[in-house]
Amino acid sequence: MSNKVSTIGVLTSGGDAPGMNATIRAVVRTGIARGLKVMGIQKGYNGLLQGDVRELNARSVSDIVQRGGTILQTARCLDFVKPEGQARGAEMCKVFGIDGLVVIGGDGSFQGAEKLANLGINAIGVPGTIDLDIACTDYTIGFDTAVNTAMDAINKIRDTSTSHERCSIIEVMGRNAGYIALWCGISSGAEMVLIPEKQRPTDEEIIKTILENKHKGKKHFLIIVAEGIGGSYNLAKKIEATTGIETRASILGHLQRGGSPTAVDRIHASMMGAKAVDLLCEGKQKRVVAFKNGQYVDYDINEALKMKKNIDDYMYEVSQLLI
Amino acid sequence: MSNKVSTIGVLTSGGDAPGMNATIRAVVRTGIARGLKVMGIQKGYNGLLQGDVRELNARSVSDIVQRGGTILQTARCLDFVKPEGQARGAEMCKVFGIDGLVVIGGDGSFQGAEKLANLGINAIGVPGTIDLDIACTDYTIGFDTAVNTAMDAINKIRDTSTSHERCSIIEVMGRNAGYIALWCGISSGAEMVLIPEKQRPTDEEIIKTILENKHKGKKHFLIIVAEGIGGSYNLAKKIEATTGIETRASILGHLQRGGSPTAVDRIHASMMGAKAVDLLCEGKQKRVVAFKNGQYVDYDINEALKMKKNIDDYMYEVSQLLI
Amino acid sequence: MSNKVSTIGVLTSGGDAPGMNATIRAVVRTGIARGLKVMGIQKGYNGLLQGDVRELNARSVSDIVQRGGTILQTARCLDFVKPEGQARGAEMCKVFGIDGLVVIGGDGSFQGAEKLANLGINAIGVPGTIDLDIACTDYTIGFDTAVNTAMDAINKIRDTSTSHERCSIIEVMGRNAGYIALWCGISSGAEMVLIPEKQRPTDEEIIKTILENKHKGKKHFLIIVAEGIGGSYNLAKKIEATTGIETRASILGHLQRGGSPTAVDRIHASMMGAKAVDLLCEGKQKRVVAFKNGQYVDYDINEALKMKKNIDDYMYEVSQLLI
Amino acid sequence: MSNKVSTIGVLTSGGDAPGMNATIRAVVRTGIARGLKVMGIQKGYNGLLQGDVRELNARSVSDIVQRGGTILQTARCLDFVKPEGQARGAEMCKVFGIDGLVVIGGDGSFQGAEKLANLGINAIGVPGTIDLDIACTDYTIGFDTAVNTAMDAINKIRDTSTSHERCSIIEVMGRNAGYIALWCGISSGAEMVLIPEKQRPTDEEIIKTILENKHKGKKHFLIIVAEGIGGSYNLAKKIEATTGIETRASILGHLQRGGSPTAVDRIHASMMGAKAVDLLCEGKQKRVVAFKNGQYVDYDINEALKMKKNIDDYMYEVSQLLI
Repeated sequence: MSNKVSTIGVLTSGGDAPGMNATIRAVVRTGIARGLKVMGIQKGYNGLLQGDVRELNARSVSDIVQRGGTILQTARCLDFVKPEGQARGAEMCKVFGIDGLVVIGGDGSFQGAEKLANLGINAIGVPGTIDLDIACTDYTIGFDTAVNTAMDAINKIRDTSTSHERCSIIEVMGRNAGYIALWCGISSGAEMVLIPEKQRPTDEEIIKTILENKHKGKKHFLIIVAEGIGGSYNLAKKIEATTGIETRASILGHLQRGGSPTAVDRIHASMMGAKAVDLLCEGKQKRVVAFKNGQYVDYDINEALKMKKNIDDYMYEVSQLLI
Repeated sequence: MSNKVSTIGVLTSGGDAPGMNATIRAVVRTGIARGLKVMGIQKGYNGLLQGDVRELNARSVSDIVQRGGTILQTARCLDFVKPEGQARGAEMCKVFGIDGLVVIGGDGSFQGAEKLANLGINAIGVPGTIDLDIACTDYTIGFDTAVNTAMDAINKIRDTSTSHERCSIIEVMGRNAGYIALWCGISSGAEMVLIPEKQRPTDEEIIKTILENKHKGKKHFLIIVAEGIGGSYNLAKKIEATTGIETRASILGHLQRGGSPTAVDRIHASMMGAKAVDLLCEGKQKRVVAFKNGQYVDYDINEALKMKKNIDDYMYEVSQLLI
Repeated sequence: MSNKVSTIGVLTSGGDAPGMNATIRAVVRTGIARGLKVMGIQKGYNGLLQGDVRELNARSVSDIVQRGGTILQTARCLDFVKPEGQARGAEMCKVFGIDGLVVIGGDGSFQGAEKLANLGINAIGVPGTIDLDIACTDYTIGFDTAVNTAMDAINKIRDTSTSHERCSIIEVMGRNAGYIALWCGISSGAEMVLIPEKQRPTDEEIIKTILENKHKGKKHFLIIVAEGIGGSYNLAKKIEATTGIETRASILGHLQRGGSPTAVDRIHASMMGAKAVDLLCEGKQKRVVAFKNGQYVDYDINEALKMKKNIDDYMYEVSQLLI
Repeated sequence: MSNKVSTIGVLTSGGDAPGMNATIRAVVRTGIARGLKVMGIQKGYNGLLQGDVRELNARSVSDIVQRGGTILQTARCLDFVKPEGQARGAEMCKVFGIDGLVVIGGDGSFQGAEKLANLGINAIGVPGTIDLDIACTDYTIGFDTAVNTAMDAINKIRDTSTSHERCSIIEVMGRNAGYIALWCGISSGAEMVLIPEKQRPTDEEIIKTILENKHKGKKHFLIIVAEGIGGSYNLAKKIEATTGIETRASILGHLQRGGSPTAVDRIHASMMGAKAVDLLCEGKQKRVVAFKNGQYVDYDINEALKMKKNIDDYMYEVSQLLI
């Protein structure tokens, strides 16, 4: 089979996520194994517009599979939202001989990829975000590491919460999606999970549950709040004022975005990177790589962007039974 | 919906796996939420035969979701392989009023469950083994923790291997299956993975690859060997004798079976435990819970035991491209 | 040698710290080995006043050496600050036959211990706090775990900080002491450490350093701020407004108080617990156990409380050279 | 104060240890801050003889403080044991203008340093070995990471050991010294520790202790064996044959030498590296940096090599009381 591309570029865009380096490594090494030249583009579309591009060889990506962050760095790029910016991006690809591009990022990044493809530079999206908020795929690179990081932090907070019989409210990331929160709730044995996809219980209902748990003999009261719900500090004040139980809120913050990727993230990141290269070689246009129903598959970018994602109702129900 | 069972038992059987405690917790709490009485059976079928059974309440399973091993312990039970033993097991269930059973373990444990079901005690299997060697399911409880544990150990060995420019041969668990080895190979950036599902390269081919990598500038040479292949010490001697490169073999051993479960293991373990209870409540007979194509489903035990499992060819191919 | 006590109590007081369980275990098992009866007092002096006391045997402290928090729990006790409360505490010790007490906590807890000793119940202090702010000792139980936890969190933040070329301000615990901050600064390669023991540089000096580092090619700018300095959010705003470099502040919070203790914490906790029991057996009065100049020693509580602690000047100087 | 040296070299020698990179970073950055030129010598004395030397700047040691292994690599060097080799080493230092050297390693490496100093190249030793077997110092770089790694592995083995009520024999590193074993014994709650510094109990005594513990209700039987004692597989067979308790031996092996260094290792490594540079600047001859009685100090290499080290008797006694 002859390849439909000869020189490909790779960039990371949007928020960084653990595992992006494993994808970069897979793109580079699979690309070279398939006979391609691979160019690394620094700082996302921003670096593309500035021509911050260099060739990567197999050794350039040595010893990065285990590192958090992205060696290609990432940045927002307002210029690339406009048609002039996109045209300049396509032009810059031609300057470096890039005829195929792998874009690792989220929905916003894929929109940019689609524009480039319309301008003659075929681009394939790879879902990289800790938030799992990309509808076409059951997995996004970085999610597993973020959940394990948050879970470990919550476990530590639980220790001290139990020692003092405190109530702890812990706010985790996820933007408008509740996946990290729901997974953390089940995996760390929290008493309650507040996520944007479900009706938030009233403060009174929350307080009632805490008091019931207290009288059942529970020594810690953990409430996981998704970023999309927010309001953790106020909730803590309300609970403490009403119940007299010492209550502390923690917003876990940016530590959830970093760290050495877990095995799951390294595997999915590697497989998806390899798949993206193979799609470019086959000449398939404007695709997003996805992990769906247990398989690595691909979708048309536009169709992918129109899909809707729902939280698993049975999982949410189970999270409430496990208290 | 009225439940088809009123008192259920839960036991862990075969080798232990991280996440089994999360399943036990889910069985107990979901069971109680569904209006059932839940009995914990200590030390697998062995404890059943000896009547080592006690009621569990919601607090009995507090603070265990994060612990490795199994609070119910596990043991082999030769007596239960025989019809007399199985009859005594069914009798003992009746003594404690147990009319449904959740059996957490591997294929051997499911065979016992099927026998009990034939004797009137409906039993549901939940796949718990680090080896991922159960054909009907894409996931078995404990696998993710075992892979991460092995990967972390390999990463540490890689540090010292690089400092000394050594060759390191690392043997990981998995019995006759190569999943742990293949996942470790990709996720830790090993140069070679030897698994039982694929033709083992000859010693000469292995040595040739090491020498090629050396001359490409690689500073470490990691070879992951699956338990089902073995022979790590001899291979190390052969490599050192032929190449002069200092070579060490490590058999990671039992540390791979323990440790606090990862988020993935806690989630699958919790969901599968809840699913098993719901199957018992619905009166479905002789089922195995599985995670297949991204969904929690269930199969007939006998059909499940006849299925065949294959290693993913594309994943194996990618593992070779990433070197 | 005949023991000067026959029944001893043990309690944890003030903020909890990882390793307290290892101390409890050591007190119980060493006590029993020395022929004593050991009573666990729940929730600090509060539980003492309420008679929340039970005998502990060797099995009561099984499987706790690796757990964060304290199985005896802890609480503040305003009543015990007053002479009436102290008298009631001494009385309650007599009710349970307690003639010696091990108090695990900080300076405030030791003051209580001294009062009890004056009332005839010999009490020995063991330094347990993550803050390292007890003057008589070079080590306090929990410090090493807290530093490693904070360091790991900072390392994760560094990953994402580097990917985005951000400035990150990370506020760590330590109350009025800068030890956690200084250790984190050196161990995580931060550009700057702000601690209460040293003159805080002005905002302008901080911003100048960041800009110098940026022009030297540094891709991350980490500033560790001790709790006793505070003001992280305002500093972040100031930096971003002046330099245009995206700047984020994180307050690590309560996760620093929990988690499975490190080896150092388990060892010191075990040795200090054993030492406390031996001091009670020898009949030494009102002592605090300390680790000083590489040895386990003991001081008079009142003398210990009068000591002053200084941050190591050479260590602070080195922290500035390592940027 | 004017410096007594102008260009210094740094090398790592003997077995690698986590934290060596933190020392290299400290030597480079402190050296540059003191106005020196710093040369990195690859692969120990071997690289010195081959002139494998390059200048290091502040950026050369970016992002290494958290990495295991040594970026300078290490190797044995038989030629350097002979006077001709040493003379060539001193000559090579002159070729690169090196008038002071920091040697990170163990006793064998310090002997080499002393020879170089006799030949006019002042050399300072920094104690780097996981084994803690250097008499003049209470701390050697890498020990804390190795202990924590071994402890974590033992904790995982304990999980599965408890699930199956097995006896587990775990052999840890330390060459002829029992420090790692003793620390692991106390910190992981082992039932027995066998170290070369103390009379080994007979097999019969060991078996008697296991049986006593079993009848007390203990569910796991962990025996930590120091490398200097060995014989773990035979002991396992003997125990299983005599008691019928399933017994497994694990030799933890090389994973103990790698991994990201703990905070303690990074701090000591950084401080000792800075101290070594300052000794060179002051013109102090043939010194070894040590951490003794809570202070960073230095000794004459020859005196240091003559010192004897003893295991702490009280710590060994406590380890036996904690069972």
